[in-house]
Parts: sequence; C-alpha cells; structure tokens
Amino acid sequence: MSPKPPIGFCGLGAMGFGMATHLVKSGYIVTGFDVWTPTLEKFKTAGGVSTPSLSESAKDKAFYVVMVATAQQADSALFGEEGIVQSLPKEATLLLCSTVPSSYAQAVEVRLKDVGRSDIFFIDAPVSGGAIRAADGTLSIMAGGSSAALQKGQWLLEELSAPSKLFIVAGGVGAGSNMKMVHQVLAAIQILAVSEAFGFAARLGLDGSSVREKVVGCEAWSWMFENRSVRTLGEDYFPGASALMIILKDVGIITSMARLVNFPAPLCTIAEQVYLSGVDRGWGPNDDAGMVRLWTSDPVSSIQSTLSATEKEKKLDLVVNLLRTVHLCAAAESIAFAKHVGLPLPQLYELAVDAAGGSTMFKDFGAKMIPILEGEDSGKERIVSFLESIKIVLEEAQGIKCPLYLGSGALNLLLMVRGKGGEVDLGGLLGLYKR
Amino acid sequence: MSPKPPIGFCGLGAMGFGMATHLVKSGYIVTGFDVWTPTLEKFKTAGGVSTPSLSESAKDKAFYVVMVATAQQADSALFGEEGIVQSLPKEATLLLCSTVPSSYAQAVEVRLKDVGRSDIFFIDAPVSGGAIRAADGTLSIMAGGSSAALQKGQWLLEELSAPSKLFIVAGGVGAGSNMKMVHQVLAAIQILAVSEAFGFAARLGLDGSSVREKVVGCEAWSWMFENRSVRTLGEDYFPGASALMIILKDVGIITSMARLVNFPAPLCTIAEQVYLSGVDRGWGPNDDAGMVRLWTSDPVSSIQSTLSATEKEKKLDLVVNLLRTVHLCAAAESIAFAKHVGLPLPQLYELAVDAAGGSTMFKDFGAKMIPILEGEDSGKERIVSFLESIKIVLEEAQGIKCPLYLGSGALNLLLMVRGKGGEVDLGGLLGLYKR
Repeated sequence: MSPKPPIGFCGLGAMGFGMATHLVKSGYIVTGFDVWTPTLEKFKTAGGVSTPSLSESAKDKAFYVVMVATAQQADSALFGEEGIVQSLPKEATLLLCSTVPSSYAQAVEVRLKDVGRSDIFFIDAPVSGGAIRAADGTLSIMAGGSSAALQKGQWLLEELSAPSKLFIVAGGVGAGSNMKMVHQVLAAIQILAVSEAFGFAARLGLDGSSVREKVVGCEAWSWMFENRSVRTLGEDYFPGASALMIILKDVGIITSMARLVNFPAPLCTIAEQVYLSGVDRGWGPNDDAGMVRLWTSDPVSSIQSTLSATEKEKKLDLVVNLLRTVHLCAAAESIAFAKHVGLPLPQLYELAVDAAGGSTMFKDFGAKMIPILEGEDSGKERIVSFLESIKIVLEEAQGIKCPLYLGSGALNLLLMVRGKGGEVDLGGLLGLYKR
Repeated sequence: MSPKPPIGFCGLGAMGFGMATHLVKSGYIVTGFDVWTPTLEKFKTAGGVSTPSLSESAKDKAFYVVMVATAQQADSALFGEEGIVQSLPKEATLLLCSTVPSSYAQAVEVRLKDVGRSDIFFIDAPVSGGAIRAADGTLSIMAGGSSAALQKGQWLLEELSAPSKLFIVAGGVGAGSNMKMVHQVLAAIQILAVSEAFGFAARLGLDGSSVREKVVGCEAWSWMFENRSVRTLGEDYFPGASALMIILKDVGIITSMARLVNFPAPLCTIAEQVYLSGVDRGWGPNDDAGMVRLWTSDPVSSIQSTLSATEKEKKLDLVVNLLRTVHLCAAAESIAFAKHVGLPLPQLYELAVDAAGGSTMFKDFGAKMIPILEGEDSGKERIVSFLESIKIVLEEAQGIKCPLYLGSGALNLLLMVRGKGGEVDLGGLLGLYKR
C-alpha cells in the first residue's frame, strides 16, 4: 500500500491503545476516538490524532478499526446517530476486532446492507494475545469475511498481527468470532483452574511458589497458569492485567452461543457461575487471578509449608492431577464446540496450541481428538487414569472441605463416559458433546 | 413385648432427644448417654435415665439405639474402650439410626464378628422426618438387616416410625443406608434449589412471599421448598432448624459413594461445592435456608416489588421453570442412583414421594422413570419443554449477572441428552447416569 492510508480507530482501552499506537509507530496517521477523555490526551502524546467526535474519526478514513469492549458498545458506535457507518467513505474497509458473539458479527453484515452501506468491506477480526503483543503488532488475529473484504483488509490485519498468527478462518463473517469463542473455551476454563489449583494447594498446606514451579515444569502446564501465577504469587490483582469482567464477558458469549446452538458446555458453564460469584464479591474490576481469594484470604506465597518432602510431593501430585484432568476436559469442550459450529479443527489446533489457550493436555490430547471428531479414528484411546486420579483428588478435597468446582465437574464428565466394563476413552468424552 | 424392655440410647441431639423422649412417653425405661452434659439434665427432666457413662447406657440393655451425627462418632461410641458393643448383653438388638455410608454400616457388621459379638442383632436403620416427627414417633425409617435382626427389632422400629413409614429394605445391612442416601440426593439438590430460586427471584425484583405463594401452589413445589421457605422469609437461620453442616455431611456421603461405585452425580456434586462455599463463609452452623445469602444480603421479604402484574407473572414463571427443571433432574439423579446400587425403585418412590425429598416433579416424572429403568418402557416421553424453558431462565440470569449453579447444571444435562433431531426424552436423561 502506498502511500500509507489514514486509519480511523474507535476504542483506546488496554488493547485498542496498544494496537492504535503500534499503527502510529508504523507510520500511519491514526485518528482515534474514545469516550474517556484522558485516554485521548494520552493517545495524542503518543503521536496519534485524537478526536472527541466519532464521526470525525471515521470521515474520509478508507480503513477503520473498532476495538471496544462489547457488542453493545460496538453497536452504538457503528450504527448510532453520527456513528462510524454513517461517516465512513464509500468502499471503506471496516475491522471489528472486539470479542463479540458470531451472531452479532453476522448481524452487522446484514445491518450494513439494511442501511444501504453494503459497499463497506466488513471483516470480523477478533484478536488474542494481550496488551503487550497488541502494542508490538504481534497479536493473534482470527479473521472472517468475504474474500473481497479480506483482500482489502489483509495488509492491515498483517500490520496488527505476528507473521504466523494471522488466521483467515473459512466461513465468512462470524467465522473469526467463532474461532475466538472456541479458543476462549480454553481460556475461560483454564483461568479459573489457576485459582482452583492454587486455592486447593493452599488448603493442602503447599506454598505457592512450589506449586508454580511444579506445574510449569510438567504436563499440568497451561499458558494461563504460567501467565497468571505470577500475579497470583504477587497478589497483583488491583487492577492487575486482565479484569475478571473481561473473561466473564467472554464466557458469557460462549454459554450464550452454546444455548443457541444446543451445545453443552459444562465446564464453561461452571466457570461462568463461579466468575459471577466473584463479581458478587466486588472483584469484577480486579485481575482474574484474584479468584483464588474464593479459597484463601491469605496470600498463597505466605504459606509456610511444614510438610515432609514425601508428603509435599504427594500433595503436589494432587494439584497436578486436578489441572491435567480439567485441561483434558477443556480441550474436549473447545474442540467439540469447534466441530459443532463447523470450524476447521486443525486451524483451531494450530492457533490455540501456541496461544493463551494452550496447555500440554491440549497439545497432546487435542491432537488425538481431531481425527476422532473427523471420523478418522475410533477414539479408543484410554483415559481411565484421569478418572482414577481425579477421584482421589476429590476425595482429598472433600476431606479438607475444599470446593473444587471444575475438578468435580471434570470428574462427573469422566464418570458419564465410563462404560459398563470400566472403559473410559477419548471418543466417549467427545461423545458427551456431539450427539 | 411384655413387659417393656429397658432401652439404651446414645446421642441425644435434636433428633435423638426426640426419639428417646418419645420412647420414655411410651412407657419404656430409656437410659440415655450424650457427651454434652446439659442435654443429659434435660433428658432426666423429661423422664429419662441419664448417664455420663457409655458403658452404663448399654449394660443389661437388650435393645440399643445409636443416633449420633456421623459415622466417626458412631464408630468410637460402638467400638471404643468401654463402648457400647463391649457392654451390651448377649443377643442384644442394636439399631444404628445415624445417616452413614452404607459401606460403614456393612463395616460394623463385619467388625461385630471380628470382635466376637456376632450374637448382636444389628440393624442399619437411618431415619428421616425432622425433630418434630422424631418426638412424635412418626419418623420415616429405612431399615436393612438380617431377617433375624429385623424380626427382633421390628417392634422398636415401629415405636419410632409412623405406621406407613417403616420401610424394610431388602438387601441386608447397608440397604437402609443406601435408601436413605438416594433419598438425600433429592434433599441435597432441593435444599439448595430453594436458595437458588429465592436468590434469583430477589435479583429479578420479586418479593419473597409472592415467590413462596406461587411455588407452593404449582408444579415447582417441593417439600423442601415449602418447609425451608418459611425460614427463608423469616431469616430464621441462627441456628434455624437444620444446619448447613448436616446436609453437607449427607451430600458428602452421596458423592463419596458415587465415586466408589462410579456413578455420576452431577447435581449433587454441584450442590456440594456450593455448600462448601457456604461453609467457607462461616455459615456451617446456620440453617441451610441461609444459603440464599450467596445471592442477596437483603432479606428476601424486604424486596419492594415495583413490577407490573404482567411482568411479575413472567418473572415468577422463570423461577417456576428453574425449580421444575432442577427437580426433574434431581428425580432422575436419585432414581438412577437407586437403580445403580440395586435398590427396589417402587419402594424408593413410595418412600420419597411423601417425605422430605418429595416434589411434584418426582411424583409425576419419577413414576415414569421407574418403568424406563426397569426396561418396561422405552423412555420416549418428551421433555424438550424443560430444555427450552431452562434456556430462557439462564439467558435472563446471565443478563442480570445472577449465578444459577443448579439451573445451569440442569441445562447442561438436558443439552447432553438432546439428540441430533432435537429430541429430548426421559430415557435419554436417565441414560446419562446408567451406562
């Protein structure tokens, strides 16, 4: 593209600000809008063009990025009086990067036609990767749209994403949001699993840093655990880096879509109820790692472990078994949902294995789940050891009166899978989701 | 029996005190033991013989009743130094009326042999019905034992129970406890459902008394709702009539046995985790109706409803649909568990339909579930309306950020049942439990 076209940008929050200033640094003239005045000042200081007028931010901008927090916000910014759609020039390219239900992204496409703006090239392009990668222009992006729109917007998607992290998802508008959604299945479950694991560990008398060291170095690893546990150990929740409200919004998109398409999402549903109970306690604006406070009011790093080396190792194994079983079921829930909404499974795998939803279980067992769901494998891989070990975990938790929301949910899934002969296999687990 | 034999009694708590004094009123000489001295004084005032010696309470007593709170307590009272078993006369009849795991009741039978007291006629006889019926001698009793033991103890079981409420459960020692356990599946789920319903209603802006009036008069009725809601409306939780710790203990027996016999008990498991979170808040000694405080710190009777009549009716329907779906799944979980452990289903039905586990859903759909589980009905009865209505409930709850632990659990079960063609039937629901 030459010369560099001006870009309009709506939504300069943690993610949007990073994305917009990255474009500024890359030499684009970016006109940014936000409802929060201080951020407009900050954007100006960072070299952007700030405007308190939404219409001004869109006027004469052949390219426009929307990065607000919710579908509701997007809708009023796009279609409100003096809004973006009204003000965009003919044949502009419009990227919606917010995490929204795919049904909303599809509704935007319809609405553009209804208001006589089918000339706009619309791309459904949710992102993942956090504020730092946003500012570096190395986000993961899951983009869906018409081929014409994707062709027009490709360079801008490339500017914002890392080379191997731009995923064009087949299926048109909505496919990007669906891909983000099934990725967030992993995120939503695995974020709560971090707190559940640390909370359980604390009640077992394990100090937080031993737990982190153990988990990060073994099959219980998840990207979320490695990432969040730093904040858990530092009690860095105020506000931390990722508010509880954000993952609650994402899990709400998942369960809401699950209801719509008749997909059972048992672990996401559990996570949502527990997140809601965190919001009830006033933790919505705090970092999601602060959910560990449901289990312990003491900092997990303050626990003085008095256990012998053998006892300690035994208890760490309980934590490991809790996480690996929850992660196994999370992988099944995510991949089965992807299958249910018709997404290409290998693409989900490629995307998630190396992103915020990644886990060792997803890497190892996700790879085995795909051929089963695609009918290329009979699914006889035995996973009975997960059932046996999570039973012991729940037995111990019951003894110390420790709630394990996800752990008990995962146990019940595996018990439902268990056949008369005692067999528990991967195909059976996936079969709970696909009827 | 003539003349009336002396009876020994251990455990003069809310239930035991009522049972023992009822026997006193019926003309028996009852020697009561408890570790709590004030209750011994009270028992003496009520006409009983009090003793601070466990051994004294058992010496020369041809009949003995144990009504302590837990299996641990029972075990130390029975088999401890100078304990009951050591002190009972030859061929005494021993009733264990506490709610314990059936595996514990069976262990007592084995242990009696091991200590050379196979002469004792042992009956596993948990009770149900609350303190008032205990004092009236009109409890429900679920008794298992050898026919010799049952013959010896029948008159005493009859003294303690209402004429139609003595259930001799086939299967020997353990069968009574198993029957109590599957009854408590209903109790454990339906007790939490009371609070979840009132909490949801409060957040919908409904006043508590309208909710009670609506529910008690319709298909959402349960015995627990009618019973507990009086205390919910009066905030009568301190201590109220039935401590959270008690139902937590019972649900722990259920989930622990479920793990042992590989039975998935998804709603009980959810209830257990939520009860544990109540205990974490310090509510263990409070009435279980106080669980509503998870949803609202205001008294539910203080809500000033500003809704129009139509809005109010619509919202009451949401509460009704929440309860009836949870109760439907509770019925399936209880009856399928009974089948799994080999209990006679018609007896469970007869017992529970008119006891604390009763609900309109159990009455109507429980009756249909039994022939399905017994292979006499193909289970095609459609229950898709439950799925559709609980979806709407969850949609609304999500909108007002109200956690519905049981409601979302029930939704997921029904979504797992749903076939490719959209069919949801009773056989499918039961099929989730029986593999």
